Amino acid sequence: MALSGLHRIAGQARAAAAPRFHGIDATTQARLEPGYPEATPEEIDSALREAAGAFEVLAAADGETRAALLEAIAREIETLGDGLLARAHAETGLPLARLTGERGRTCAQLRLFAQVAREGSWVDARIDPALPQRQPLPRPDLRRMLQPIGPVVVFGASNFPLAFSVAGGDTASALATGNPVVVKAHPAHPGTSELVADAVDRAVAACGLPAGTFSLLHGREPRTGLDLVRHPDTCAVGFTGSHTAGRALFDAAAARPRPIPVFAEMSSLNPVFLLSSALAARGSTIAEGLKQSFTLGVGQFCTKPGVVIGVASPAWDAFAARLGELARSVPAGTMLHAGIAGAFAESTADLRDVEWLSKGPAAAARVSAARFLDDPTLHREIFGPFTLLVTVPDAAGLTSFARALDGQLTATVHGDADDLSAPATADLLRTLGQRAGRIVLNGFPTGVEVAPAMQHGGPYPSTTDSRFTSVGTAALARFVRPVCYQDFPDSLRPPALQDANPLGLMRLVNGAPTRATLGTA
Amino acid sequence: MALSGLHRIAGQARAAAAPRFHGIDATTQARLEPGYPEATPEEIDSALREAAGAFEVLAAADGETRAALLEAIAREIETLGDGLLARAHAETGLPLARLTGERGRTCAQLRLFAQVAREGSWVDARIDPALPQRQPLPRPDLRRMLQPIGPVVVFGASNFPLAFSVAGGDTASALATGNPVVVKAHPAHPGTSELVADAVDRAVAACGLPAGTFSLLHGREPRTGLDLVRHPDTCAVGFTGSHTAGRALFDAAAARPRPIPVFAEMSSLNPVFLLSSALAARGSTIAEGLKQSFTLGVGQFCTKPGVVIGVASPAWDAFAARLGELARSVPAGTMLHAGIAGAFAESTADLRDVEWLSKGPAAAARVSAARFLDDPTLHREIFGPFTLLVTVPDAAGLTSFARALDGQLTATVHGDADDLSAPATADLLRTLGQRAGRIVLNGFPTGVEVAPAMQHGGPYPSTTDSRFTSVGTAALARFVRPVCYQDFPDSLRPPALQDANPLGLMRLVNGAPTRATLGTA
Repeated sequence: MALSGLHRIAGQARAAAAPRFHGIDATTQARLEPGYPEATPEEIDSALREAAGAFEVLAAADGETRAALLEAIAREIETLGDGLLARAHAETGLPLARLTGERGRTCAQLRLFAQVAREGSWVDARIDPALPQRQPLPRPDLRRMLQPIGPVVVFGASNFPLAFSVAGGDTASALATGNPVVVKAHPAHPGTSELVADAVDRAVAACGLPAGTFSLLHGREPRTGLDLVRHPDTCAVGFTGSHTAGRALFDAAAARPRPIPVFAEMSSLNPVFLLSSALAARGSTIAEGLKQSFTLGVGQFCTKPGVVIGVASPAWDAFAARLGELARSVPAGTMLHAGIAGAFAESTADLRDVEWLSKGPAAAARVSAARFLDDPTLHREIFGPFTLLVTVPDAAGLTSFARALDGQLTATVHGDADDLSAPATADLLRTLGQRAGRIVLNGFPTGVEVAPAMQHGGPYPSTTDSRFTSVGTAALARFVRPVCYQDFPDSLRPPALQDANPLGLMRLVNGAPTRATLGTA
Repeated sequence: MALSGLHRIAGQARAAAAPRFHGIDATTQARLEPGYPEATPEEIDSALREAAGAFEVLAAADGETRAALLEAIAREIETLGDGLLARAHAETGLPLARLTGERGRTCAQLRLFAQVAREGSWVDARIDPALPQRQPLPRPDLRRMLQPIGPVVVFGASNFPLAFSVAGGDTASALATGNPVVVKAHPAHPGTSELVADAVDRAVAACGLPAGTFSLLHGREPRTGLDLVRHPDTCAVGFTGSHTAGRALFDAAAARPRPIPVFAEMSSLNPVFLLSSALAARGSTIAEGLKQSFTLGVGQFCTKPGVVIGVASPAWDAFAARLGELARSVPAGTMLHAGIAGAFAESTADLRDVEWLSKGPAAAARVSAARFLDDPTLHREIFGPFTLLVTVPDAAGLTSFARALDGQLTATVHGDADDLSAPATADLLRTLGQRAGRIVLNGFPTGVEVAPAMQHGGPYPSTTDSRFTSVGTAALARFVRPVCYQDFPDSLRPPALQDANPLGLMRLVNGAPTRATLGTA
C-alpha cells in the first residue's frame, strides 16, 4: 500500500520538515520505507487550530452523525484489508493472528461507541422542573447534560498498534462525544498509523464533517508531545505508555496557564495473590495459567501479572519450581521494538539478590517480601515476559503486602472455597479494592473486555486519574463536562433536555431515572 | 456558647501552639475571643492519619449508616440554636435572616445527600454477566461500582460560613460517599467553625463511627493549607475562594509524588448579555433585577454578575443611567472581613479610563468592548458590589465578546421572543455553552439551587475541573472512583453488585438501565 511519509493535517498530507525517522521491521531490524518527519510547532498549531475550528460543528452534530462517523471509520479500516495487517506486523513484530484479532476489537469498539452515541443516554440528562409556587423562593427550571470539552490529543501506544492507537479507544471516546482529535502517531508504527489515518480521513469526508475533525502528526522527540499538550486549543489528553512519559505530559498539562486533564495509563505490577488451599489443590494449573498470562504478547500488556505473592510453604516452592520449568520452555518472542527489547534485557540483568527460576526469554525470579518492600527498584514495572514471585511468611502477610502496594490497574486472587470464606480474605479483597481498578478472582488480568462494566484505570501510578477508565464505554466520560440550562424555553433547549424527550433518553427527572416525557401542565 | 480556641482532631480538642489569631467582629472590628492557633505539621499529620485509619470503616459502612451520620449532623447543627447564628453574624457581618436561611440550606443539603446515600444508586452499578459460550473467548463476569477514594481535605469558604464551610456541600459530598474529612477552618470565622465541628463530632460519636471520620484544623498561613494538600494520606481537596489560593493548592497537588484532584471554585465574571428587544422593552426592570443580583450579600457571591454586555443604543444608555441611579441608592453593607473590604476598595479605585455610573458603596462603570478586551486587569473578578457594563458595537459583537471570554461559572442572557428566535442568539447560546457551566435565560445567576440538575463549576479559571460540580447531588462524583469486580461469587460481591439487587438500585445490566434482579440460570 502506498505510504506518503507525511502528516495528515485536517485531511491534507503535508510535512514542512524532511523525513527524520523510519519504522523498523521488528523481526529483521530492517529500515522500512518511507521516512517520517518530526512535526514542527507550526504544524502542531495548524492541526489544533483546525480541530478548534471543527469543534463547534462536531459539538452540535447529533448522535446519529457521530455514530455514522465511527461506523464509517470501522468500515474504512476493514477496507484496508491485509495490507494494514502486513504493515503492522512488520512494524511491531506482533503475529498476524493477534493483529487480526486486534483489528476486530478496534472495529467492534468503534461500533460499540457508535451504539452508545446513537442511543444518547450517556449525556446523563437531569431535569428539575420549575417550582414556581415554592416558598420562600420559586425554583427555576434546571436541565443539565454532558457536552464535549474540545480538541483531544491522543498518543498512540506501541503495544496496541490498532486498538490503542490512531482509531483506538481514546479516539473513539472523543469522537463519540463530539470532540475533534489530533493523534500523535507512535514512532514505532508510523506506517500503520498513516494507513489508519487515511481511513479516518475518508470517513470524515464521507460523513460531510469538517476536515479538522481529525489530524495525525508524526514525531519521536519528547518536545513534540509536550508542544501538543501545551497548545492553548488542546482541551484533554489520552495517553498509554511509560511512567516517565506519562508523568511528563501530566506535569506539562498541570503547569499550563489553563490546566487540562491528562488520562495517562502508565504502569502496573498487577499483583496476583495465591491463597493456600488453591495453591495446594491446583498450584500446577495456576502456574500454567500464569505462564500463559505473563508471556502473552511477549509480556507486552499493561495488565501483565508482574508480581505473584504466596505464603512460604512446600506448595509455594512446588509452584515456583513448576513456573520456572514452564517459563524455561517458552521460546523467544519478537518484541515491539529495539527500545523495549533493550529495556527488558537491561531491567532483568540489573536484578540483584533474587532467586532465579528462569533466565530464559521468559524470565521469572523469587524474593522475600521483606526484600521486595525494602527495594523500590523492584516495584517498577518490567515491560516484557518477566514475573517476580514474592514470598510472605504467613497468611496475614498477604494483606500487609497488599497494603504496601502502590496503585494498580488490576489485582488478582486465586482461592478455593475455604480460602474465600476466611475472614482474612475479605480483608485482603477490601484492601485490594483500595489499591486497584479491577479485582480478578481465579483468573488472570490480561484480556481486557470492552464493555460497560470494564474499569481499566487505577490509583496512581497506574494511571494519572483513577476516576476514569480508558477501556469500555465509560471511557467517554473523560472528554465531557456538564452544562446546566436554566429557564430555557423548550425550543431553545438541546433535544436531550426537551419536554417531549424526542431522543427517548433515560433521564433523571426530579432525581428519579425515567424515559418519560414531561407534562406541559 | 463556650468556645475552646482549639483544633478538633478526631474528636479531641487540642492545640500544640499558642493562639495566633482571632475572629474579628465584621461590624465593629472588635477582636472576638478566644484566640485560635495555627495547626502544626504534627497536628496536620495526626488529623490525616486518623482520617486514613477511619477510612476503611467508613468505606465499608452502608448507605443507611452514612445517611444517619449526615442527618445527625443536621440535627446537631439545629440544636446549636441561635448561638451559632449570633457567632456567625459577629464573625461575618452577614444578617441574621441570611444566616438563618443559610443554616436551613446547609441542613437541607445534608439531608438531601443523606437521601442519596440511602437510596444508593449513585454508585453507578454496572453489570456485564459472564458469557461462557462466547467465541472466540468466553466473557468473564464484570461488575463495576463507584467507591470512596480516601481522606478529603475541605477548605471552608469565607462567604458561606455554614453552607460552604465545616459541614457544607464539600463535607456532605465526601461523607455521603464514605470518605473521612479534614476541614481547614476559614480564619475569618473560626468560632462558627468550632461550633459546627462540635456538632459534627457529636454526630460521629452518636453514630458509633471512628472519631477520625472528622477533624477541624485552624490556621491562616498559606503553608498550613499547602501542608494539608501535600500530606500523603490526603486523597482529594475541595476549595472555594480566590484564584491565587486555589491555583496554589492545585499546583501543590499536581506536583505531589502521587498527584491528587483539587476541586477549586475560584473566580468568575458571570457575564450577562442583554439582547435588543428585551433591553428596549424592559431595560428598567432588568436594571432593577441586576442591581438586586450584583449587590445581594454585598456582592460577595461566586455567581455575582460582574460584567453586563449590551449593544450601543439609546436603550443601552438608558439602561446604564438607570442602573447607575439604582446603584447610587444602595446603602453601604458590611463586608465579610477587612481583607475583602480592602481588596474591594483597592480594586475599584484602581479602575482607570472607565465611565463611572455609580461610585457609591455599590459601584458600576462602563467601558467599550475594545477597551475591555485590551486590558486583562478588567477580566479579574472584583469580589463585592461592583459590576462593569461593556458596550459592543452591534449584535454580532455579543457573540464575538462571548468567544473572547475565559471560563465562567455562569452566563446569562436576557431576550424577548424575537431576540430568542434570531439565529445569532442560537450562536450566542452555543458559544456560552462552551464557556460556562450554567446558562441562565431571563434571570440572574445568583441563587444556586441544591438539586440533581445543578451545575456549579465551569471551565478554568472559574474552577480547576469543569467536569464536576460543587453544588447539587452530582457533587459527590468528585470523591469516588470505579472498581470492577471480575468473576466474584455472589457472596463476596458488594451488595450493590449482587444478583438479587438487595439494595434495589437502578443498575446498568448489559448496558441497559434496570432495577431488576439477575437470574441465577
